[in-house]
Amino acid sequence: MIIDCHGHYTTAPPALERWRNAQIAGIQDPSARPRVADLKISDDELRESIESNQLRLMRERGCDLTIFSPRASFMAHHIGDQEVSRTWAAICNELCHRVSQLFPAHFAGAAMLPQSPGSDPRHCLAELEKCVNDYGFVGINLNPDPSGGHWTSPPLTDRHWYPIYEKMVELDIPAMVHVSTSCNACFHTTGAHYLNADTTAVMQCIQGDLFKDFPTLKFVIPHGGGAVPYHWGRFRGLAQEMKKPLLQEHLLHNIFFDTCVYHQPGIDLLTQVIPVDNILFASEMIGAVRGIDPETGHYYDDTRRYIDATAHLDEADRFKVFEGNARRVFPRLDAALKSRGR
Amino acid sequence: MIIDCHGHYTTAPPALERWRNAQIAGIQDPSARPRVADLKISDDELRESIESNQLRLMRERGCDLTIFSPRASFMAHHIGDQEVSRTWAAICNELCHRVSQLFPAHFAGAAMLPQSPGSDPRHCLAELEKCVNDYGFVGINLNPDPSGGHWTSPPLTDRHWYPIYEKMVELDIPAMVHVSTSCNACFHTTGAHYLNADTTAVMQCIQGDLFKDFPTLKFVIPHGGGAVPYHWGRFRGLAQEMKKPLLQEHLLHNIFFDTCVYHQPGIDLLTQVIPVDNILFASEMIGAVRGIDPETGHYYDDTRRYIDATAHLDEADRFKVFEGNARRVFPRLDAALKSRGR
Repeated sequence: MIIDCHGHYTTAPPALERWRNAQIAGIQDPSARPRVADLKISDDELRESIESNQLRLMRERGCDLTIFSPRASFMAHHIGDQEVSRTWAAICNELCHRVSQLFPAHFAGAAMLPQSPGSDPRHCLAELEKCVNDYGFVGINLNPDPSGGHWTSPPLTDRHWYPIYEKMVELDIPAMVHVSTSCNACFHTTGAHYLNADTTAVMQCIQGDLFKDFPTLKFVIPHGGGAVPYHWGRFRGLAQEMKKPLLQEHLLHNIFFDTCVYHQPGIDLLTQVIPVDNILFASEMIGAVRGIDPETGHYYDDTRRYIDATAHLDEADRFKVFEGNARRVFPRLDAALKSRGR
Repeated sequence: MIIDCHGHYTTAPPALERWRNAQIAGIQDPSARPRVADLKISDDELRESIESNQLRLMRERGCDLTIFSPRASFMAHHIGDQEVSRTWAAICNELCHRVSQLFPAHFAGAAMLPQSPGSDPRHCLAELEKCVNDYGFVGINLNPDPSGGHWTSPPLTDRHWYPIYEKMVELDIPAMVHVSTSCNACFHTTGAHYLNADTTAVMQCIQGDLFKDFPTLKFVIPHGGGAVPYHWGRFRGLAQEMKKPLLQEHLLHNIFFDTCVYHQPGIDLLTQVIPVDNILFASEMIGAVRGIDPETGHYYDDTRRYIDATAHLDEADRFKVFEGNARRVFPRLDAALKSRGR
């Protein structure tokens, strides 16, 4: 089977965005703040939004299951305070949960966290536990920069984040390290901030010794790892100057890269440079880049084509990238699939 | 001949750093502020610092000439105010000028600018003109984030920067877009901030229409363009969604990538994806990554080996990467070389 480890609910019914806009308006004017119960989205609306979009493309592209989380750019943790994020995360996660219930064969949930700039990550734990224990989610998205491009939180190696990691280890779930919308005019959200965050997160892990404290902690770095595989020699050399172990030892028991790289040469490099055990298939479809590449005639984000075409993988490798690695990195997904005989 | 378009004076005699430390101490205590005349570095010291380092390696690696600018991480525009930067830039540029006078066959200068957070770029013009007109410098380094990792300046497409661009066009010099030390704990200077800045600068240029206003403006994006070539499909797709022209038209008359990518697969990707006319040889030697790659037995930053070895370039292409493109992008270098019969 083919598992896409990186999908967001980018096609949610428009009522969701209207509710969010009302919530944002309510930050200034509490009397205008909407109630959670004001948001009404029927199962039929959810079904339609998925069947005509993600599920249609998954069928066309031969993808069986997507790990599905709330729209990354809409997390916007920089808006409002802890309470605003708490309510918003709960709503978005519940919608993904409902999608996974409507299409249990095709979607497994991953949670957004109710992060907020300057707020203690412990405030995220209740939502995290609910999503995993009650909703059956198999992972989380962790935003290393809830400020939205101002980078005011400590590095991921700081003890600030340890409560999240302790809970991840306890529940045996990985985190995709994924920022949200940039509110810094220097950084285009999907063209700069996302990729910069991926690079930044990996370099933080090289500088630190986080995985000594959490040997089983697992991070998925999206968007093919930002700049990291392209500059793998630079990162190997920097680690060497810092007297760190080889990256294979220092990073690659704990860090995995997805395949959201939208052209063949990029996937060729990724699969040449990064050990196959550390690569997870993903497309982030109907996301940042939705068009058709005039050079190929296919969707940029139809990443399965690049994996199928690359000369660096044999069939056993492709099994790992498409399925095996995802089952290993997301043990709760593996368990859920096995319980259904898959 | 082989021209390295990206070298910094990372090996300046220690008196320079001592003077800088005194200058920084003098920000709090003006009575302790050193005079420019307190810095004494002899020609012999300069010669020794170059002959035993950059020039030795250039000879070993068969590189003829380096475009040489002050140490990037020491620019540290975030320290002090406009006046502190003005004095510091003048000192650093003068040292590079003296190096280019001592070794005229091997070094051509590029200027650091006396940028300062929140300061009008017009304050940089006097130093820029002195370096080009009096010192014979052939380019500048432009820091898109003088705050050192807080990204408080407007994007490079903003009119804020236009005075610099007008002067660049008038003098026919390119800018390497190069940040300095990060004082944001999230960003490792050479492992995250440098690469992020490269990616950010290119995406700003994709979003904007800067080169409509300045059709002859030229930017060199260092470190192989950050994440850009690896994600070239993503950037082509993002430009397409923004209804911009193809990147060949929109960017590549004005943007060039250097070859500071420290492993063979990275250079292979760069030379496969980016048209050869937009690639300039560079090593940034004795810079971020100074060690020997245990996988090859050679210095990571000995980038000539990767250019020589890549299958994507023929001899005519290699001439462009090693020499022809640099002469085109740095017209003042070309003129200086021709005046000496080279």
